[in-house]
Amino acid sequence: MNFPRAITLVLPAWAVSFLRAARCFPTDQDKMGLAIELSRLNVTYGTGGPFGAALFRGATGTLVAVGVNRVVAETCSAAHAEMMACMLAQKRLGAFRLPAKGNYVLASSAQPCAMCAGALPWTGVRRLLFGASKKDVELCAGFDEGPLHPRWKHEFKKRGISVTGGLMRMEARAVLARYRETHGTRY
Amino acid sequence: MNFPRAITLVLPAWAVSFLRAARCFPTDQDKMGLAIELSRLNVTYGTGGPFGAALFRGATGTLVAVGVNRVVAETCSAAHAEMMACMLAQKRLGAFRLPAKGNYVLASSAQPCAMCAGALPWTGVRRLLFGASKKDVELCAGFDEGPLHPRWKHEFKKRGISVTGGLMRMEARAVLARYRETHGTRY
Repeated sequence: MNFPRAITLVLPAWAVSFLRAARCFPTDQDKMGLAIELSRLNVTYGTGGPFGAALFRGATGTLVAVGVNRVVAETCSAAHAEMMACMLAQKRLGAFRLPAKGNYVLASSAQPCAMCAGALPWTGVRRLLFGASKKDVELCAGFDEGPLHPRWKHEFKKRGISVTGGLMRMEARAVLARYRETHGTRY
Repeated sequence: MNFPRAITLVLPAWAVSFLRAARCFPTDQDKMGLAIELSRLNVTYGTGGPFGAALFRGATGTLVAVGVNRVVAETCSAAHAEMMACMLAQKRLGAFRLPAKGNYVLASSAQPCAMCAGALPWTGVRRLLFGASKKDVELCAGFDEGPLHPRWKHEFKKRGISVTGGLMRMEARAVLARYRETHGTRY
């Protein structure tokens, strides 16, 4: 019997060329703007669900990694944008936990689902920014966000992770709505 | 700058040879026995944390995939045993959601953390078996289980996933205790 031993998850080619033109992203708006742009391009290019994320070094806003939803393309229910960005950042830095001194910031176009919110405390990320809310994701795009801890922001705070939500929410919602209109796959 | 585009997560070589000798695992005890054996071997061979998981087709108990904790080896905080098993099963079956007709069962040597519990509703798994409890994991091995939903079993039930915990708990705990004694990496 054929038992695969390895899992490989790959970003779409456009994301790489996008990365090569990397600029600095000093403000929260800059960071969120990139996350939303990634979500938009993922829909435009048909390379995955309407979600984007980007990971930055805190002090400088240097881009470390990006992620987009790759669930369908990689036949992997865990290949959410936030997971992709965090796994790629850890791989790049050779650290299973991003070092505290980097004050790493994750910007996600939408509020993390239960899996991604559960994953973040292990990543070493110190700050989370997100755009669209859980309700936006459920209403605009028809996705279930799963069994998220009802006080997840408080749980994050206890673990030293600050959260700022609703940043550029209208822009983030617009991508979700566009995805719904184009009848994209929901899961 | 070097931006990695792909993440690859690999099982240790012993797990593959172990898989090749695959037997059938009809009962819950059989399934849990395999998950605990995987956790034990992962400690013995020094290939990761004290956690193992295995995924089976429900009706027959046919082994579909196995997973062990690979966080340190793969510098990836998401490489938990349950995530590895589910991702490998989805890859093997070419499905981002395991089909309902397979009634797939995941056996995990320990209660899933917040990330893995958040991930399971997306995998298509219909039944979860686990051995050691959250407290066992926290007390015996010193791991934090994260912001798990306080009523996660109820949330699973709402989504059609049944849960049986505490199976062969003493055997599962013994692996956690042994890991603690050997001063393994905690994260």
